[in-house]
This record gives sequence, C-alpha cells and structure tokens, in this order.
Amino acid sequence: MDLKTFFNPASIAIIGVSENPKKVGYLVAENLIRQGYKGEIYFINPKFDKLFDRPVYKDIKDIKKPIDLVVLAVPADAAMHLLDDLKTIDIHNIVLYAAGFKEAGVDGAVKEQNLVMKAKQYDMTILGPNCIGYVSTISNANVTFLKNASPKGNVGFISQSGALGSLMVDYLVGHENFGFSYFMSLGNKATIDECDLLEFLRDDPDTKVIGMYLEDVKRGEDFKRILEETTKIKPVIILKSGSTVEGSKAAGSHTGSMVGDDMVYTTAFDQYGGIRAGQFFEFMSMLKICSFGRAPTSKDILILSNAGGIGVLLTDELIKNKLELVTVPEDVKETIKRNMGGDKVTIHNPIDLLGDASAFQYRQAIAATIQQKHIGGVIVMLTPQANT
Amino acid sequence: MDLKTFFNPASIAIIGVSENPKKVGYLVAENLIRQGYKGEIYFINPKFDKLFDRPVYKDIKDIKKPIDLVVLAVPADAAMHLLDDLKTIDIHNIVLYAAGFKEAGVDGAVKEQNLVMKAKQYDMTILGPNCIGYVSTISNANVTFLKNASPKGNVGFISQSGALGSLMVDYLVGHENFGFSYFMSLGNKATIDECDLLEFLRDDPDTKVIGMYLEDVKRGEDFKRILEETTKIKPVIILKSGSTVEGSKAAGSHTGSMVGDDMVYTTAFDQYGGIRAGQFFEFMSMLKICSFGRAPTSKDILILSNAGGIGVLLTDELIKNKLELVTVPEDVKETIKRNMGGDKVTIHNPIDLLGDASAFQYRQAIAATIQQKHIGGVIVMLTPQANT
Repeated sequence: MDLKTFFNPASIAIIGVSENPKKVGYLVAENLIRQGYKGEIYFINPKFDKLFDRPVYKDIKDIKKPIDLVVLAVPADAAMHLLDDLKTIDIHNIVLYAAGFKEAGVDGAVKEQNLVMKAKQYDMTILGPNCIGYVSTISNANVTFLKNASPKGNVGFISQSGALGSLMVDYLVGHENFGFSYFMSLGNKATIDECDLLEFLRDDPDTKVIGMYLEDVKRGEDFKRILEETTKIKPVIILKSGSTVEGSKAAGSHTGSMVGDDMVYTTAFDQYGGIRAGQFFEFMSMLKICSFGRAPTSKDILILSNAGGIGVLLTDELIKNKLELVTVPEDVKETIKRNMGGDKVTIHNPIDLLGDASAFQYRQAIAATIQQKHIGGVIVMLTPQANT
Repeated sequence: MDLKTFFNPASIAIIGVSENPKKVGYLVAENLIRQGYKGEIYFINPKFDKLFDRPVYKDIKDIKKPIDLVVLAVPADAAMHLLDDLKTIDIHNIVLYAAGFKEAGVDGAVKEQNLVMKAKQYDMTILGPNCIGYVSTISNANVTFLKNASPKGNVGFISQSGALGSLMVDYLVGHENFGFSYFMSLGNKATIDECDLLEFLRDDPDTKVIGMYLEDVKRGEDFKRILEETTKIKPVIILKSGSTVEGSKAAGSHTGSMVGDDMVYTTAFDQYGGIRAGQFFEFMSMLKICSFGRAPTSKDILILSNAGGIGVLLTDELIKNKLELVTVPEDVKETIKRNMGGDKVTIHNPIDLLGDASAFQYRQAIAATIQQKHIGGVIVMLTPQANT
C-alpha cells in the first residue's frame, strides 16, 4: 500500500467543516491552518460561505480540481452515503472520524462490513473509522482534532487510541527538540492497519524511532515480517495494552477488536526486535532516549547526583531492572576529586557531587565520565538545593 | 525523649549567620523569617552587626535570655568547641548541620564519638550532624536551608536524606492542601533518631499521616514497638532505600550507617503495620492519598475516563497490582447512561465517558458511583481533548 500521497497530500478537502468551536469540523479546519499546511485547502458545508476567511463550498463536486485527501467530519450514516459521491469524482484517500461502527454493537459491525466492501469496490484507502486522523510535520498536514499543533521531531507514532496521541502531544509540547515526524491514529482499521503504517514509517527518512500503541494486531504474519525489517533499521517501541485478561476484555469492548493471548505478543515483539514498554511513562522515556540518540551502550551505568539519598534509591531501581553499577576507574576518580577541590572526598558509584555542586562541577564530572568506553551510560540527577 | 520544646521552641538562636546568600548561615536565617516564625530570633556572628534589619550578636553569651534552640551553622570543629560554651549557658537543644563526622572516614567517626559523649555529658539533644534541620509548620520554625518555605499540611515527614526533603517541598509547592506538619532531617542521628521522631509524630495531633525515608534503623526493638503503636493511630508510609545489596552499600558510604538484610526490614514493617513504598512516586502518592483521607476501602476499583485506551492501560496496571475491577450494578449503569443521553452507550468498567465528556458529566458519574458501598475506590482519568 503506497501511502505517500495519503500522508503528504498536495490538496485536502474537509467535508463537514463547522462554525462551532466545539465541533470536530471546526477543530480540524483550525488545526490544518495552525500547523501551517501549505497545500490546497477546500472546506465544504452547504450551510455557510466563509470559515477562517476562506471560501466554503456547498458541494465537493463544485471544486473540480484534483483532491489528494478527503476528510469526513460527518456522522457515520452521512459518511456512508458520501462515499458513493466521492467515487464519482475519483477520490481515493479518506480520513473517517465517525464512531458508531465496529465498536458499537451488532448494527455498527454490519455498517463497518459495508464500509470495508465499499472501500474495496471503489478502490479507496481509509484511515479510521473511529479515529482522530493524523499529523505529518513533513507536509504540515494536521487533520486531527487534537488540542495543540504538533511539535516537529523524529518520532513516528502509530496509535490505536486517539487519546494517547493527545497525551503525547501535551507531553511533547514544551520539550525541546522532541516531537513527531508523524502521528497516526488507527481507529477501527477498516482498510489501513498497523502493518501498513509500520511499513510506511520503516521507509520514511524523517522518522528515527517508531512508537506504537496497540490493542491488537490484525495480520500477524505480515506484522512479524515488517517488524523484523523495520527493527533492523530503526528502533520500534511498543506499548501494548491488554497485558492482563481484564485489560484485554476492556480493549475488546473499546475498539471492537479481538485480542489474543498476551504472551504471544510479548514473544513475537521480542523475536522480531521490537521493544515492549511496561507502561506509558516507560514508553515515553524510551522514545525520548531513542529520539535523542542516547540509548546506553551497555548495562554498566554510572550515577551522578548532588545528594546521597536519591543516588541510593536510583541504585536500587537500576539493580531491580537488571542494570549494573560500573566501577569508577582510578584516573576518573582522581579527576573528579581534583575538580571538587577536596582530597577528603571518597568517589564511588553512585557519585555524590554534594549539595553545593555547581553546574560547572556537574559539567566537569559528565565530561570526565561520558567518553569512557566501558561506561554504558551516565544518569545525571539534580535535586535543586538552596545553594545549588 | 520529650521533643515538644525542640520542635516548637519559643526562641531560636542561629550561630554563624552569614551575609552571603549562598551560605547556609544566610539561607537558614532567611527561611526562619520567610516561614513566619513568631518566637524570639537571635542571630550570632562577631563579624557584622545587622542582618535582615535585625541585630547580630557578637557572642551568644551576650543575649542573657533563655534560648530554647540553638542552630549551629558552622563547620564541624568549630561546632565541637561551641558545645563547651553552650553548656555554660544552659543550652540543651541543638541543630547541627555540619558534615565531616561519621560519614567522612575514620577521623570523622572519632569526631562523632566525641560528639555523642559530649551530648550525654552536657545533657544535650542534637538533631544531626550532617542534616538539613527541620520545619514545624505549627510554630513556623523553619531551620532548614531548603529553597522554599514549606507548605502547611498534615504530613509528618522524617527523612534520612536532606535532598529528599528538598524534592518533597518542590513537589508539594503548588499542590493545594498538601503539605507538612513537620519535616525532620535525621542526618547521622548522633542523639535524635527515627524512633524519637516517630514517637513525637505518633502523639502529634496535627500529623495525620507519617512518611519516613530510611536508610537504616538504629534501635530495632524500640522501632518495632513504636511503629506498632503508631500504625494503630495513623498510617506510616516508609520508603527504605537499600532494597538491593548495591543500594545498601551506596547507603552505607553516604550517611555512614550500617545497613541490614533488606528482607528483615520488609518483614518488620509489614508485621507492625507500616506500609513500604516501592519507590519515590509511590511514596508520594500514598502520602497524598492518606493526607486527603482517600484510601480505597477495598480492592474493588472503578475506572472513569474519557478515552478507551487509557482505561485499558490502567486496567492492566490495576490487575498487575492485585486490585480488581468492580462490576457496575445495573441501576448505576442506567443512571450513567441516562446522564450521557444515549441508550446506545454500553457501560462497563472501565467506564468510557467518551471524548466529549463535560465536567458536568464527570461530576454526575462520580456522584453515581463513589457512594456505592461495594465500590472500594473510583479512579478518575482525564485526557484533555480539544472538545473537552
């Protein structure tokens, strides 16, 4: 599946734009402009003529120009009818937000079957339904109804939950140099699924690390193959919910997906090079470390702090997580001692630079240790003290 | 050991105040005033006459009034000499910050032995050495060199690490209604140890929950007895470092304490009613829950969220931590359904109030569930969405 045009379209039409700032049809239009999208933008709604100082078309058929992507900000039934219209004007790429499909009981499941059939018949590629769209910071196409514009970065994030995307953006905003290349919300995966997106990000030069939030995997064998190919090139961090039976059940009723035995996932991720995060903050930390190219080179860790107590607590955590405290070589000890201006200081890992350590002393200590080949990583902790 | 006067003194003298805003002698004087201490304050330093518009005495002997507490902001050797002077003017309560005692090799250990002997001989009660003092938000005596004034609250915190206190204050500032009754930094425990402080907080009516950061326990049998007595009255949350051999070693070199087999601690805490936290954020969360009187009444938990994905992730976490998802009773389901204005919604735990849930709908859902006797606790999660 070639998704280049889908995720970096030269033109986008939004059907169902709204004047009400609470509605999805307003929020998407606003995000697209706010993110700085440079392609052609077409708004469609028969009820009014202008939005954000741009013309609003009564009907998509009035546009009569090529449209690379159509965003449907309308309810499920209206969307189903629109597909027939869109076919007649040769539209192939669609983002569908509407809920009320597979996740909503038997009626919804039937509706989703019809959707899948139509998509095949009309040769349409659909993101969703029951999704919140996507952001490309490459083309600045932001067709989500997230609260903020997305910071640009090298993390590609595929999410089976829209809200996780919202959490991520909130978290990323305010972090320097940490942001998305792409954020893609999977929804019910009527046509585009996690395999297609992983494949796309595998080949994307702007994506340095891939994060996936998954509740299930649709095509197991394809997924394994693509995961293996991808992890040879860049790290893939996976947060999969449903690691307990109860969680699986909750996931099932939430996006209408079938969830398998969790051990099968753990084994497959492991075997094909994916890294499974235990929970959300671990997921975020691993993405950050990979995004910055700061993954430790071995298990031998050095701790630098300005307070004994937190160094001790971190030591406990490291050991519980199967990392090790590296022994500080004599010459490095001497350097740090000299910089701290005291012969009386005893240097051992965790290194306590003492409460009055200055930024300069921290810098010296980092410089003295981080280049050492047998030190796999340096963790720097700072408790702000009044005389810091 | 009666510590009432020690922690709520009517008069405080600081020996070694400083004009240099980077020095402990300045910071302590500033904190005492900033916290709003209402008792008598005496500053002592022979080198200058005024500090913060208050007189500075040349010698503590010039004051000739009763002094409930003397704070020594001077180095170790100077402090040792001062003790002899202080004896002659009937001083019994002392806070000693200086490092260079037991934690600093053989010479330091000898010095600490002398300190302990003098304290006994002179009938002196000493907090420290190698500590950062204490805060009482009852008398507003803040004799620490922490960066901020301490927010008032019902948490009594005893810490064998000064930096943890600093972390706590940073964390507490900006949290409404969450703060200390007392913060006490143990240091090397020359005379006052964790048993004395636990006993004091046990009997303190302003302390609703006690937090302890410990690296070791000095008097095992006394500790067990006092812990048992205390936990019958109020919860005691303990963060003990050195839960790994490596962590124990690091703790040993940090405050010069002997650390025992960690399992012994776990067993004792458990047997006598203490609650051991796994790490710092768990410690903080438990203190907060107890401080607000919001401990769950059973393991049967209900999750309210506005996003399926995070509800699923939290379900996994709850189950892994041996909690359970409570079944939502039919009548509660009906109430929530009605409030959400939809017959089509299916309500099950975790309850997804959907992305457009308003504060009002959250409130209704909380009201409908929190009073239910068989629901042990309600966890409310909110992912901010653009149309929230």
